[in-house]
Amino acid sequence: MPAESTTVGRAMMKHDRASAALGMTVVVNEPGRAVVTMTVRDDMLNGFAITHGGFVFALADTAFALACNDSEYVTVAAGADISFLKSTTAGDVLTATALERAKSGRSGIYDVQVLDAAGATVAEFRGRSRRTPTPHAAP
Amino acid sequence: MPAESTTVGRAMMKHDRASAALGMTVVVNEPGRAVVTMTVRDDMLNGFAITHGGFVFALADTAFALACNDSEYVTVAAGADISFLKSTTAGDVLTATALERAKSGRSGIYDVQVLDAAGATVAEFRGRSRRTPTPHAAP
Amino acid sequence: MPAESTTVGRAMMKHDRASAALGMTVVVNEPGRAVVTMTVRDDMLNGFAITHGGFVFALADTAFALACNDSEYVTVAAGADISFLKSTTAGDVLTATALERAKSGRSGIYDVQVLDAAGATVAEFRGRSRRTPTPHAAP
Amino acid sequence: MPAESTTVGRAMMKHDRASAALGMTVVVNEPGRAVVTMTVRDDMLNGFAITHGGFVFALADTAFALACNDSEYVTVAAGADISFLKSTTAGDVLTATALERAKSGRSGIYDVQVLDAAGATVAEFRGRSRRTPTPHAAP
Repeated sequence: MPAESTTVGRAMMKHDRASAALGMTVVVNEPGRAVVTMTVRDDMLNGFAITHGGFVFALADTAFALACNDSEYVTVAAGADISFLKSTTAGDVLTATALERAKSGRSGIYDVQVLDAAGATVAEFRGRSRRTPTPHAAP
Repeated sequence: MPAESTTVGRAMMKHDRASAALGMTVVVNEPGRAVVTMTVRDDMLNGFAITHGGFVFALADTAFALACNDSEYVTVAAGADISFLKSTTAGDVLTATALERAKSGRSGIYDVQVLDAAGATVAEFRGRSRRTPTPHAAP
Repeated sequence: MPAESTTVGRAMMKHDRASAALGMTVVVNEPGRAVVTMTVRDDMLNGFAITHGGFVFALADTAFALACNDSEYVTVAAGADISFLKSTTAGDVLTATALERAKSGRSGIYDVQVLDAAGATVAEFRGRSRRTPTPHAAP
Repeated sequence: MPAESTTVGRAMMKHDRASAALGMTVVVNEPGRAVVTMTVRDDMLNGFAITHGGFVFALADTAFALACNDSEYVTVAAGADISFLKSTTAGDVLTATALERAKSGRSGIYDVQVLDAAGATVAEFRGRSRRTPTPHAAP
């Protein structure tokens, strides 16, 4: 975790076995903004030898979760839309940047852009968050 | 793969390392329809000890890919929207059922419903497919 | 309003100046299901002489609102996704059929299919509803 | 139309009876960016006396259409997702700002933010465009 990560983000990632198992690295973790990277592995490829959409989504979703958990209450994903713009394959390094776009009451909208190492857009993800009344567990 | 699987589906899954690594089982694979199951593992949980959204998406995406590859040409996901309705955790068995909803030229719309073992809706996924001019590789 | 319309639906449509101004007719209005029709007019066409997407969306949105207001509390649209599959023009009669797909707590998912008179799919709409704590006004 | 409008945009709006009938005003019209305003009227209200979602969508859709028609070929909306964050009513002035977010081949992603006069976010719209092989008609 980067030096500038939030306390909540550090606790979330410490317990996030899924993101760890996928080899994700948190580069930035601030209230309303997060950057996470992941290198595509052989076991993330689908039957067409390109990155399975689920792993591109997973990377964006982790960045989204870090960006939207900026209060003392657990915030969850109510849903998301993703557009796949460029396929990738094993060895490609993907970077997901999540930014808060709008908030209204307990709901929020976050945009996550997934780029490859050359800066080309791999996917555009828009997440819909919902703040729950449950406080975060002590870190 | 089930007895009734299509030739294309069999070839897709044979080479799909991602779906295999996640422990997915194809139950039905027909033109325009597919059913795939997956048991949630410890390494699929996020920092809140619930299934990471990426794995629910991945399961739905595999069912979608099987349902929409019903022609001699490779069909890819242009995008998808997912709503998360119920959280799940390790040990839960998820079943994704994909159905063709509409087609127009090279574009298609597929609905995928993800249920838990009790029949409760875990997620609703709507995929947007795009048929490419590339023929499927020989199986 | 059709004979089988709900009390809430009747009250909603009685006060819905927008749907009336667009010439919408409610054909079915039951809890969880609604059918609404509209004839495309010259003043609904965009600069390409096809129906402006806003009016196709408006028709689907009215059907969605009737289908999801099936309790004593006002239910509003949190959002929606629409895919446009076939363009239409003045004189075309559009029929929107809304069906409840899933519910979870105060949230719901509704599918609305918009067809033309020949039965071709014009648009597929998926609405996300949110039930508020506000009771419906007396009819 | 503003002085800085594009030739294509001027021609599109000249023939767009829908946007004219809804009282829309184009404030900015550049390749990849457009700003359009509209004042909510009584006949745009639904049965809850708030702006019918179809008109908020229509405003965003017109801004999207102007922003994405930046080539010599007609570009159409393949679909869009909208989240409604704040309700409005008659007399409110809405401003939609559309910006290109990503392009890949013939597909594009555009974000449209709809604000009220106080600068509060009314809706967030994300449009998916598709460039056709049809050239724009002579203006």
